[in-house]
Amino acid sequence: MIGAGNVAYHLSVYFKENGFNIIQIFSKNLENAKALGNKIDSDFTNEEALISSEADIYIVAIKDDAIADLVTKIPQLKNKLIAHTSGSVGLEILNKLSNRAAVFYPLQTFSKDKNVDFQNIPFCIEASNSEDLELLKTLASEISQKVFSINSEQRAAIHKAAVFACNFSNYMYIIAEKILKENNVDFSILHPLITETARKACLNSPYFSQTGPAKRNDKLVIKKHLSSLSNDELEIYQLLTNQIIKTYNNE
Amino acid sequence: MIGAGNVAYHLSVYFKENGFNIIQIFSKNLENAKALGNKIDSDFTNEEALISSEADIYIVAIKDDAIADLVTKIPQLKNKLIAHTSGSVGLEILNKLSNRAAVFYPLQTFSKDKNVDFQNIPFCIEASNSEDLELLKTLASEISQKVFSINSEQRAAIHKAAVFACNFSNYMYIIAEKILKENNVDFSILHPLITETARKACLNSPYFSQTGPAKRNDKLVIKKHLSSLSNDELEIYQLLTNQIIKTYNNE
Repeated sequence: MIGAGNVAYHLSVYFKENGFNIIQIFSKNLENAKALGNKIDSDFTNEEALISSEADIYIVAIKDDAIADLVTKIPQLKNKLIAHTSGSVGLEILNKLSNRAAVFYPLQTFSKDKNVDFQNIPFCIEASNSEDLELLKTLASEISQKVFSINSEQRAAIHKAAVFACNFSNYMYIIAEKILKENNVDFSILHPLITETARKACLNSPYFSQTGPAKRNDKLVIKKHLSSLSNDELEIYQLLTNQIIKTYNNE
Repeated sequence: MIGAGNVAYHLSVYFKENGFNIIQIFSKNLENAKALGNKIDSDFTNEEALISSEADIYIVAIKDDAIADLVTKIPQLKNKLIAHTSGSVGLEILNKLSNRAAVFYPLQTFSKDKNVDFQNIPFCIEASNSEDLELLKTLASEISQKVFSINSEQRAAIHKAAVFACNFSNYMYIIAEKILKENNVDFSILHPLITETARKACLNSPYFSQTGPAKRNDKLVIKKHLSSLSNDELEIYQLLTNQIIKTYNNE
Protein backbone atom coordinates (compact mmCIF):
# COMPACT_ATOMS: atom_id res chain seq x y z
CA MET A 1 0.00 0.00 0.00
CA ILE A 2 1.59 3.22 -1.16
CA GLY A 3 0.11 6.02 0.92
CA ALA A 4 -1.24 6.35 4.45
CA GLY A 5 -3.92 9.04 4.05
CA ASN A 6 -7.71 8.65 4.22
CA VAL A 7 -8.17 6.34 1.24
CA ALA A 8 -5.06 4.24 2.00
CA TYR A 9 -6.11 3.94 5.62
CA HIS A 10 -9.66 2.77 4.97
CA LEU A 11 -8.67 0.44 2.13
CA SER A 12 -5.88 -1.15 4.20
CA VAL A 13 -8.06 -1.71 7.23
CA TYR A 14 -10.90 -3.11 5.14
CA PHE A 15 -8.65 -5.40 3.08
CA LYS A 16 -7.06 -6.68 6.27
CA GLU A 17 -10.46 -7.34 7.86
CA ASN A 18 -11.43 -9.27 4.74
CA GLY A 19 -8.48 -11.63 4.88
CA PHE A 20 -5.97 -9.92 2.62
CA ASN A 21 -2.34 -9.60 3.60
CA ILE A 22 -0.85 -6.14 3.21
CA ILE A 23 2.87 -6.75 3.43
CA GLN A 24 4.02 -3.12 3.57
CA ILE A 25 2.85 0.47 4.00
CA PHE A 26 4.90 3.19 2.31
CA SER A 27 4.44 6.84 3.15
CA LYS A 28 6.82 9.77 2.95
CA ASN A 29 5.45 10.65 6.38
CA LEU A 30 7.03 8.03 8.69
CA GLU A 31 4.56 8.67 11.51
CA ASN A 32 1.60 7.93 9.25
CA ALA A 33 3.29 4.87 7.75
CA LYS A 34 4.04 3.54 11.23
CA ALA A 35 0.57 4.23 12.65
CA LEU A 36 -1.16 2.42 9.80
CA GLY A 37 1.45 -0.37 9.67
CA ASN A 38 1.00 -1.04 13.38
CA LYS A 39 -2.77 -0.93 13.10
CA ILE A 40 -2.90 -3.67 10.48
CA ASP A 41 0.18 -5.58 11.63
CA SER A 42 2.19 -4.75 8.53
CA ASP A 43 5.74 -3.67 7.72
CA PHE A 44 6.21 0.02 6.91
CA THR A 45 8.79 2.40 5.45
CA ASN A 46 9.24 5.99 4.39
CA GLU A 47 12.13 5.27 2.03
CA GLU A 48 11.37 4.79 -1.64
CA ALA A 49 14.36 2.46 -2.07
CA LEU A 50 13.01 0.08 0.58
CA ILE A 51 9.65 -0.49 -1.10
CA SER A 52 9.13 -4.25 -1.20
CA SER A 53 9.34 -6.10 -4.50
CA GLU A 54 7.35 -9.02 -3.07
CA ALA A 55 3.75 -7.77 -3.42
CA ASP A 56 1.30 -9.11 -6.01
CA ILE A 57 -0.51 -5.81 -6.27
CA TYR A 58 0.65 -2.27 -5.50
CA ILE A 59 -2.03 0.27 -4.69
CA VAL A 60 -1.07 3.93 -5.00
CA ALA A 61 -3.48 5.82 -2.74
CA ILE A 62 -1.89 9.26 -2.51
CA LYS A 63 -2.98 12.75 -3.52
CA ASP A 64 -3.71 13.15 -7.24
CA ASP A 65 -0.96 15.69 -7.78
CA ALA A 66 1.65 13.66 -5.91
CA ILE A 67 1.53 10.67 -8.29
CA ALA A 68 3.67 12.27 -11.00
CA ASP A 69 6.44 12.90 -8.48
CA LEU A 70 6.17 9.45 -6.91
CA VAL A 71 6.71 7.55 -10.16
CA THR A 72 10.09 9.22 -10.63
CA LYS A 73 11.27 8.24 -7.14
CA ILE A 74 10.31 4.64 -6.48
CA PRO A 75 12.10 1.62 -8.04
CA GLN A 76 10.74 -0.08 -11.15
CA LEU A 77 8.09 -2.71 -10.45
CA LYS A 78 8.43 -4.69 -13.66
CA ASN A 79 5.59 -7.11 -14.37
CA LYS A 80 3.87 -6.11 -11.16
CA LEU A 81 0.28 -4.92 -11.18
CA ILE A 82 0.16 -1.32 -9.94
CA ALA A 83 -3.09 0.61 -9.60
CA HIS A 84 -3.77 4.15 -8.42
CA THR A 85 -6.99 5.26 -6.71
CA SER A 86 -7.37 8.67 -8.35
CA GLY A 87 -10.40 9.91 -10.23
CA SER A 88 -8.65 12.63 -12.16
CA VAL A 89 -5.36 10.99 -13.23
CA GLY A 90 -4.97 8.78 -16.29
CA LEU A 91 -3.76 5.19 -16.12
CA GLU A 92 -0.69 5.87 -18.27
CA ILE A 93 1.11 7.84 -15.57
CA LEU A 94 2.02 4.48 -14.01
CA ASN A 95 3.54 3.10 -17.23
CA LYS A 96 6.91 4.41 -16.10
CA LEU A 97 6.89 1.88 -13.26
CA SER A 98 5.31 -1.17 -14.80
CA ASN A 99 3.74 -2.50 -17.99
CA ARG A 100 0.78 -3.53 -15.85
CA ALA A 101 -0.67 -0.12 -14.97
CA ALA A 102 -4.23 0.08 -13.66
CA VAL A 103 -6.80 2.18 -11.83
CA PHE A 104 -8.78 1.24 -8.74
CA TYR A 105 -10.93 4.30 -7.98
CA PRO A 106 -13.43 4.21 -5.11
CA LEU A 107 -16.08 6.84 -5.75
CA GLN A 108 -16.71 8.23 -2.28
CA THR A 109 -15.76 11.06 0.06
CA PHE A 110 -13.59 9.78 2.93
CA SER A 111 -12.89 11.12 6.41
CA LYS A 112 -10.19 9.41 8.46
CA ASP A 113 -12.19 9.30 11.69
CA LYS A 114 -15.22 7.58 10.20
CA ASN A 115 -15.77 3.93 9.40
CA VAL A 116 -16.35 3.21 5.73
CA ASP A 117 -18.68 0.54 4.41
CA PHE A 118 -17.00 -0.31 1.12
CA GLN A 119 -19.78 -2.76 0.20
CA ASN A 120 -21.87 0.16 -1.03
CA ILE A 121 -19.07 2.20 -2.63
CA PRO A 122 -18.74 2.05 -6.43
CA PHE A 123 -15.28 0.99 -7.63
CA CYS A 124 -14.21 2.20 -11.07
CA ILE A 125 -11.71 -0.26 -12.50
CA GLU A 126 -9.39 0.11 -15.49
CA ALA A 127 -6.34 -1.90 -16.58
CA SER A 128 -3.87 -2.12 -19.47
CA ASN A 129 -4.91 -5.67 -20.33
CA SER A 130 -7.94 -7.88 -19.87
CA GLU A 131 -6.32 -10.33 -17.42
CA ASP A 132 -5.46 -7.54 -15.02
CA LEU A 133 -8.92 -6.06 -15.45
CA GLU A 134 -10.42 -9.37 -14.36
CA LEU A 135 -7.97 -9.63 -11.47
CA LEU A 136 -8.83 -6.14 -10.22
CA LYS A 137 -12.54 -6.81 -10.65
CA THR A 138 -12.21 -9.92 -8.53
CA LEU A 139 -10.29 -7.97 -5.91
CA ALA A 140 -12.81 -5.12 -5.85
CA SER A 141 -15.72 -7.57 -5.70
CA GLU A 142 -14.29 -8.95 -2.47
CA ILE A 143 -14.95 -5.63 -0.76
CA SER A 144 -17.72 -3.98 -2.82
CA GLN A 145 -20.95 -5.00 -4.53
CA LYS A 146 -20.61 -2.18 -7.05
CA VAL A 147 -17.71 -2.72 -9.44
CA PHE A 148 -17.64 -0.97 -12.82
CA SER A 149 -15.28 -1.22 -15.76
CA ILE A 150 -14.67 2.44 -16.63
CA ASN A 151 -12.23 3.91 -19.13
CA SER A 152 -10.08 6.97 -18.42
CA GLU A 153 -12.35 9.37 -20.31
CA GLN A 154 -15.41 8.16 -18.43
CA ARG A 155 -13.56 8.30 -15.15
CA ALA A 156 -12.60 11.94 -15.81
CA ALA A 157 -16.30 12.68 -16.43
CA ILE A 158 -17.30 10.88 -13.22
CA HIS A 159 -14.73 12.84 -11.25
CA LYS A 160 -15.99 16.12 -12.70
CA ALA A 161 -19.62 15.13 -12.06
CA ALA A 162 -18.68 14.24 -8.47
CA VAL A 163 -17.34 17.76 -7.94
CA PHE A 164 -20.82 19.08 -8.73
CA ALA A 165 -22.81 16.38 -6.92
CA CYS A 166 -20.63 16.26 -3.80
CA ASN A 167 -18.31 19.28 -3.39
CA PHE A 168 -20.61 21.93 -4.83
CA SER A 169 -23.79 20.60 -3.20
CA ASN A 170 -21.92 20.61 0.12
CA TYR A 171 -20.96 24.23 -0.54
CA MET A 172 -24.66 25.00 -1.00
CA TYR A 173 -25.21 23.53 2.48
CA ILE A 174 -22.41 25.77 3.81
CA ILE A 175 -24.11 28.89 2.44
CA ALA A 176 -27.46 27.76 3.86
CA GLU A 177 -25.84 27.28 7.26
CA LYS A 178 -24.29 30.75 7.06
CA ILE A 179 -27.64 32.41 6.22
CA LEU A 180 -29.34 30.62 9.12
CA LYS A 181 -26.56 31.50 11.57
CA GLU A 182 -26.96 35.19 10.71
CA ASN A 183 -30.60 34.83 11.78
CA ASN A 184 -30.06 32.72 14.88
CA VAL A 185 -31.63 29.61 13.41
CA ASP A 186 -29.97 26.25 13.96
CA PHE A 187 -28.80 24.44 10.81
CA SER A 188 -30.46 21.24 12.03
CA ILE A 189 -33.83 22.65 10.91
CA LEU A 190 -32.66 21.91 7.33
CA HIS A 191 -31.52 18.32 7.96
CA PRO A 192 -34.79 16.66 6.88
CA LEU A 193 -34.91 18.78 3.72
CA ILE A 194 -31.30 17.99 2.77
CA THR A 195 -31.80 14.28 3.36
CA GLU A 196 -35.06 14.21 1.40
CA THR A 197 -33.60 16.20 -1.51
CA ALA A 198 -30.72 13.72 -1.84
CA ARG A 199 -33.07 10.76 -1.46
CA LYS A 200 -35.46 12.00 -4.16
CA ALA A 201 -32.63 12.70 -6.60
CA CYS A 202 -31.56 9.06 -6.23
CA LEU A 203 -35.07 7.64 -6.69
CA ASN A 204 -35.51 9.12 -10.11
CA SER A 205 -33.64 11.67 -12.22
CA PRO A 206 -32.97 14.88 -10.25
CA TYR A 207 -34.33 16.66 -13.32
CA PHE A 208 -37.82 15.63 -12.21
CA SER A 209 -37.41 16.56 -8.56
CA GLN A 210 -36.35 20.19 -9.07
CA THR A 211 -38.59 22.56 -7.09
CA GLY A 212 -38.41 26.15 -5.85
CA PRO A 213 -38.75 29.73 -7.08
CA ALA A 214 -36.32 29.37 -10.01
CA LYS A 215 -38.09 26.25 -11.29
CA ARG A 216 -41.44 28.09 -11.06
CA ASN A 217 -39.83 31.26 -12.41
CA ASP A 218 -41.42 33.04 -9.45
CA LYS A 219 -40.06 36.53 -10.03
CA LEU A 220 -41.44 38.06 -6.82
CA VAL A 221 -39.73 35.58 -4.52
CA ILE A 222 -36.51 35.66 -6.56
CA LYS A 223 -36.42 39.44 -6.31
CA LYS A 224 -37.04 39.32 -2.57
CA HIS A 225 -34.20 36.83 -2.08
CA LEU A 226 -31.78 38.77 -4.28
CA SER A 227 -32.46 42.00 -2.42
CA SER A 228 -31.39 40.47 0.90
CA LEU A 229 -28.29 38.50 -0.10
CA SER A 230 -24.71 39.69 0.30
CA ASN A 231 -22.25 39.87 -2.60
CA ASP A 232 -20.88 36.33 -2.85
CA GLU A 233 -24.19 34.58 -2.22
CA LEU A 234 -25.96 37.06 -4.49
CA GLU A 235 -23.75 36.13 -7.43
CA ILE A 236 -24.32 32.41 -6.91
CA TYR A 237 -28.07 32.84 -6.43
CA GLN A 238 -28.35 34.91 -9.61
CA LEU A 239 -26.31 32.54 -11.77
CA LEU A 240 -27.96 29.32 -10.61
CA THR A 241 -31.45 30.82 -10.76
CA ASN A 242 -30.90 32.02 -14.33
CA GLN A 243 -29.63 28.61 -15.39
CA ILE A 244 -32.50 26.75 -13.75
CA ILE A 245 -34.98 29.09 -15.46
CA LYS A 246 -33.21 28.47 -18.76
CA THR A 247 -33.18 24.70 -18.22
CA TYR A 248 -36.92 24.44 -17.59
CA ASN A 249 -38.11 27.15 -20.00
CA ASN A 250 -36.32 25.59 -22.96
CA GLU A 251 -38.70 22.65 -22.74
CA MET B 1 -58.36 23.64 3.55
CA ILE B 2 -57.76 26.34 0.97
CA GLY B 3 -55.80 24.77 -1.84
CA ALA B 4 -55.55 21.32 -3.40
CA GLY B 5 -51.94 21.21 -4.59
CA ASN B 6 -49.04 19.16 -3.18
CA VAL B 7 -48.90 20.70 0.29
CA ALA B 8 -52.71 20.91 0.69
CA TYR B 9 -53.04 17.32 -0.49
CA HIS B 10 -50.49 15.83 1.89
CA LEU B 11 -51.62 17.94 4.87
CA SER B 12 -55.28 17.05 4.30
CA VAL B 13 -54.62 13.34 3.98
CA TYR B 14 -52.34 13.31 7.01
CA PHE B 15 -54.72 15.37 9.18
CA LYS B 16 -57.58 13.09 8.22
CA GLU B 17 -55.55 9.98 9.04
CA ASN B 18 -54.78 11.50 12.43
CA GLY B 19 -58.39 12.05 13.39
CA PHE B 20 -58.99 15.64 12.28
CA ASN B 21 -62.13 16.62 10.42
CA ILE B 22 -61.56 18.69 7.31
CA ILE B 23 -64.97 20.08 6.52
CA GLN B 24 -64.21 21.61 3.12
CA ILE B 25 -61.64 21.81 0.35
CA PHE B 26 -61.53 25.00 -1.71
CA SER B 27 -59.62 25.20 -4.97
CA LYS B 28 -60.12 27.40 -8.02
CA ASN B 29 -59.56 24.18 -9.94
CA LEU B 30 -62.78 22.20 -9.42
CA GLU B 31 -61.26 18.90 -10.53
CA ASN B 32 -58.52 19.17 -7.90
CA ALA B 33 -60.97 20.25 -5.20
CA LYS B 34 -63.23 17.34 -6.03
CA ALA B 35 -60.45 14.75 -6.18
CA LEU B 36 -59.07 15.73 -2.79
CA GLY B 37 -62.53 16.20 -1.27
CA ASN B 38 -63.56 12.73 -2.35
CA LYS B 39 -60.32 11.21 -1.14
CA ILE B 40 -60.77 12.47 2.40
CA ASP B 41 -64.56 12.39 2.48
CA SER B 42 -64.94 16.16 2.65
CA ASP B 43 -67.10 18.82 1.05
CA PHE B 44 -65.46 20.85 -1.74
CA THR B 45 -66.01 24.00 -3.79
CA ASN B 46 -64.35 26.19 -6.38
CA GLU B 47 -66.40 29.28 -5.55
CA GLU B 48 -64.95 31.81 -3.14
CA ALA B 49 -68.41 32.86 -1.97
CA LEU B 50 -69.19 29.31 -0.87
CA ILE B 51 -66.23 28.93 1.45
CA SER B 52 -67.57 27.62 4.75
CA SER B 53 -67.68 29.87 7.80
CA GLU B 54 -67.85 26.87 10.12
CA ALA B 55 -64.21 25.85 10.39
CA ASP B 56 -62.08 26.42 13.49
CA ILE B 57 -58.90 26.79 11.47
CA TYR B 58 -58.37 27.79 7.84
CA ILE B 59 -55.18 26.64 6.20
CA VAL B 60 -54.11 28.47 3.05
CA ALA B 61 -51.87 26.05 1.16
CA ILE B 62 -51.58 27.65 -2.26
CA LYS B 63 -48.70 29.05 -4.30
CA ASP B 64 -46.83 31.91 -2.62
CA ASP B 65 -47.70 34.42 -5.29
CA ALA B 66 -51.41 33.48 -5.33
CA ILE B 67 -52.04 34.46 -1.71
CA ALA B 68 -52.26 38.22 -2.39
CA ASP B 69 -54.96 37.63 -4.97
CA LEU B 70 -56.87 35.16 -2.82
CA VAL B 71 -57.29 37.52 0.13
CA THR B 72 -59.13 40.01 -2.08
CA LYS B 73 -61.58 37.36 -3.30
CA ILE B 74 -62.75 35.27 -0.37
CA PRO B 75 -65.21 36.49 2.30
CA GLN B 76 -64.01 37.88 5.62
CA LEU B 77 -63.29 35.25 8.26
CA LYS B 78 -63.61 37.45 11.33
CA ASN B 79 -62.19 35.98 14.55
CA LYS B 80 -61.25 32.80 12.71
CA LEU B 81 -57.70 31.51 12.87
CA ILE B 82 -56.24 31.52 9.35
CA ALA B 83 -52.71 30.32 8.61
CA HIS B 84 -50.78 30.10 5.36
CA THR B 85 -48.09 27.51 4.64
CA SER B 86 -45.66 29.72 2.73
CA GLY B 87 -42.00 30.24 3.56
CA SER B 88 -41.59 33.49 1.70
CA VAL B 89 -44.77 35.42 2.53
CA GLY B 90 -45.25 37.46 5.71
CA LEU B 91 -48.04 36.80 8.20
CA GLU B 92 -49.62 40.25 7.72
CA ILE B 93 -50.95 39.45 4.24
CA LEU B 94 -53.78 37.55 5.96
CA ASN B 95 -54.79 40.51 8.17
CA LYS B 96 -57.25 41.56 5.50
CA LEU B 97 -59.28 38.43 6.21
CA SER B 98 -59.01 38.01 9.96
CA ASN B 99 -57.42 39.52 13.06
CA ARG B 100 -56.06 36.02 13.81
CA ALA B 101 -53.49 35.67 11.03
CA ALA B 102 -50.84 32.98 11.35
CA VAL B 103 -48.23 30.88 9.55
CA PHE B 104 -47.95 27.11 9.47
CA TYR B 105 -44.93 26.41 7.26
CA PRO B 106 -43.76 22.82 6.73
CA LEU B 107 -40.10 22.90 5.70
CA GLN B 108 -39.95 20.17 3.10
CA THR B 109 -40.08 19.52 -0.64
CA PHE B 110 -43.32 17.79 -1.65
CA SER B 111 -44.27 15.65 -4.62
CA LYS B 112 -47.90 14.71 -5.04
CA ASP B 113 -47.28 11.07 -5.89
CA LYS B 114 -45.16 10.34 -2.83
CA ASN B 115 -46.22 9.63 0.73
CA VAL B 116 -45.01 12.17 3.27
CA ASP B 117 -43.99 11.35 6.82
CA PHE B 118 -44.79 14.61 8.57
CA GLN B 119 -43.41 13.32 11.88
CA ASN B 120 -39.92 14.24 10.72
CA ILE B 121 -40.79 17.50 8.95
CA PRO B 122 -40.02 20.76 10.78
CA PHE B 123 -43.03 23.06 11.16
CA CYS B 124 -42.31 26.79 11.48
CA ILE B 125 -45.14 28.38 13.40
CA GLU B 126 -46.02 32.06 13.81
CA ALA B 127 -49.19 33.78 15.04
CA SER B 128 -50.50 37.27 15.83
CA ASN B 129 -51.10 36.41 19.49
CA SER B 130 -49.78 33.93 22.02
CA GLU B 131 -53.02 31.92 22.36
CA ASP B 132 -53.09 31.20 18.63
CA LEU B 133 -49.39 30.38 18.71
CA GLU B 134 -50.07 27.75 21.36
CA LEU B 135 -53.06 26.43 19.43
CA LEU B 136 -51.04 26.06 16.23
CA LYS B 137 -48.16 24.47 18.16
CA THR B 138 -50.56 21.92 19.57
CA LEU B 139 -51.98 21.25 16.13
CA ALA B 140 -48.53 20.88 14.55
CA SER B 141 -47.37 18.64 17.40
CA GLU B 142 -50.15 16.23 16.53
CA ILE B 143 -48.51 15.51 13.20
CA SER B 144 -44.81 16.39 13.69
CA GLN B 145 -42.15 15.99 16.35
CA LYS B 146 -40.33 19.10 15.14
CA VAL B 147 -42.28 22.28 15.83
CA PHE B 148 -40.50 25.63 15.99
CA SER B 149 -41.70 29.11 16.85
CA ILE B 150 -40.17 31.21 14.07
CA ASN B 151 -40.73 34.90 13.32
CA SER B 152 -41.25 36.26 9.78
CA GLU B 153 -37.67 37.47 9.43
CA GLN B 154 -36.26 34.11 10.45
CA ARG B 155 -38.71 32.31 8.19
CA ALA B 156 -37.56 34.40 5.24
CA ALA B 157 -33.97 33.39 6.04
CA ILE B 158 -34.96 29.72 6.31
CA HIS B 159 -36.72 29.90 2.97
CA LYS B 160 -33.68 31.49 1.35
CA ALA B 161 -31.36 28.94 2.95
CA ALA B 162 -33.61 26.16 1.70
CA VAL B 163 -33.22 27.42 -1.86
CA PHE B 164 -29.48 26.82 -1.52
CA ALA B 165 -29.66 23.56 0.45
CA CYS B 166 -32.44 21.99 -1.60
CA ASN B 167 -33.07 23.66 -4.97
CA PHE B 168 -29.48 24.55 -5.80
CA SER B 169 -27.97 21.30 -4.51
CA ASN B 170 -30.51 19.45 -6.65
CA TYR B 171 -29.40 21.52 -9.62
CA MET B 172 -25.82 20.38 -8.93
CA TYR B 173 -27.12 16.81 -9.20
CA ILE B 174 -28.77 17.72 -12.52
CA ILE B 175 -25.47 18.99 -13.93
CA ALA B 176 -23.68 15.88 -12.68
CA GLU B 177 -26.27 13.70 -14.39
CA LYS B 178 -25.84 15.65 -17.62
CA ILE B 179 -22.04 15.24 -17.59
CA LEU B 180 -22.37 11.51 -16.97
CA LYS B 181 -24.98 11.08 -19.70
CA GLU B 182 -22.66 12.70 -22.23
CA ASN B 183 -20.14 9.99 -21.35
CA ASN B 184 -22.53 7.04 -21.23
CA VAL B 185 -22.26 6.57 -17.50
CA ASP B 186 -25.38 5.89 -15.48
CA PHE B 187 -26.24 8.49 -12.84
CA SER B 188 -26.74 5.74 -10.26
CA ILE B 189 -22.96 5.48 -9.88
CA LEU B 190 -23.19 8.77 -7.93
CA HIS B 191 -26.02 7.72 -5.60
CA PRO B 192 -23.79 6.54 -2.72
CA LEU B 193 -21.71 9.73 -2.95
CA ILE B 194 -24.78 12.00 -2.92
CA THR B 195 -26.31 10.15 0.03
CA GLU B 196 -23.05 10.20 2.00
CA THR B 197 -22.43 13.91 1.30
CA ALA B 198 -25.89 14.79 2.63
CA ARG B 199 -25.47 12.48 5.61
CA LYS B 200 -22.09 13.94 6.58
CA ALA B 201 -23.37 17.52 6.31
CA CYS B 202 -26.10 16.62 8.81
CA LEU B 203 -23.73 14.91 11.26
CA ASN B 204 -21.64 17.98 11.81
CA SER B 205 -21.34 21.38 10.15
CA PRO B 206 -20.97 21.05 6.33
CA TYR B 207 -18.08 23.47 6.74
CA PHE B 208 -16.01 20.58 8.11
CA SER B 209 -17.00 18.03 5.48
CA GLN B 210 -16.01 20.05 2.41
CA THR B 211 -13.61 18.06 0.18
CA GLY B 212 -12.45 18.21 -3.43
CA PRO B 213 -10.09 20.13 -5.71
CA ALA B 214 -11.39 23.61 -4.75
CA LYS B 215 -11.02 22.89 -1.02
CA ARG B 216 -7.45 21.65 -1.66
CA ASN B 217 -6.86 24.50 -4.12
CA ASP B 218 -5.61 21.81 -6.52
CA LYS B 219 -4.89 24.01 -9.55
CA LEU B 220 -4.00 21.15 -11.91
CA VAL B 221 -7.29 19.31 -11.46
CA ILE B 222 -9.30 22.56 -11.54
CA LYS B 223 -7.65 23.54 -14.81
CA LYS B 224 -8.32 20.12 -16.31
CA HIS B 225 -11.99 20.31 -15.34
CA LEU B 226 -12.42 23.86 -16.62
CA SER B 227 -10.89 22.97 -19.98
CA SER B 228 -13.51 20.29 -20.61
CA LEU B 229 -16.70 22.00 -19.43
CA SER B 230 -19.20 23.72 -21.67
CA ASN B 231 -20.29 27.34 -21.20
CA ASP B 232 -23.02 27.12 -18.57
CA GLU B 233 -21.31 24.51 -16.42
CA LEU B 234 -17.99 26.29 -16.86
CA GLU B 235 -19.35 29.49 -15.36
CA ILE B 236 -20.81 27.67 -12.35
CA TYR B 237 -17.65 25.62 -11.81
CA GLN B 238 -15.48 28.74 -11.93
CA LEU B 239 -17.63 30.78 -9.56
CA LEU B 240 -18.14 28.06 -6.95
CA THR B 241 -14.50 26.99 -7.08
CA ASN B 242 -13.32 30.57 -6.53
CA GLN B 243 -15.66 31.02 -3.60
CA ILE B 244 -14.67 27.74 -1.97
CA ILE B 245 -10.99 28.67 -2.34
CA LYS B 246 -11.76 32.06 -0.80
CA THR B 247 -13.73 30.48 2.05
CA TYR B 248 -10.94 28.13 3.08
CA ASN B 249 -7.96 30.36 2.35
CA ASN B 250 -9.28 33.20 4.49
CA GLU B 251 -8.83 31.02 7.56
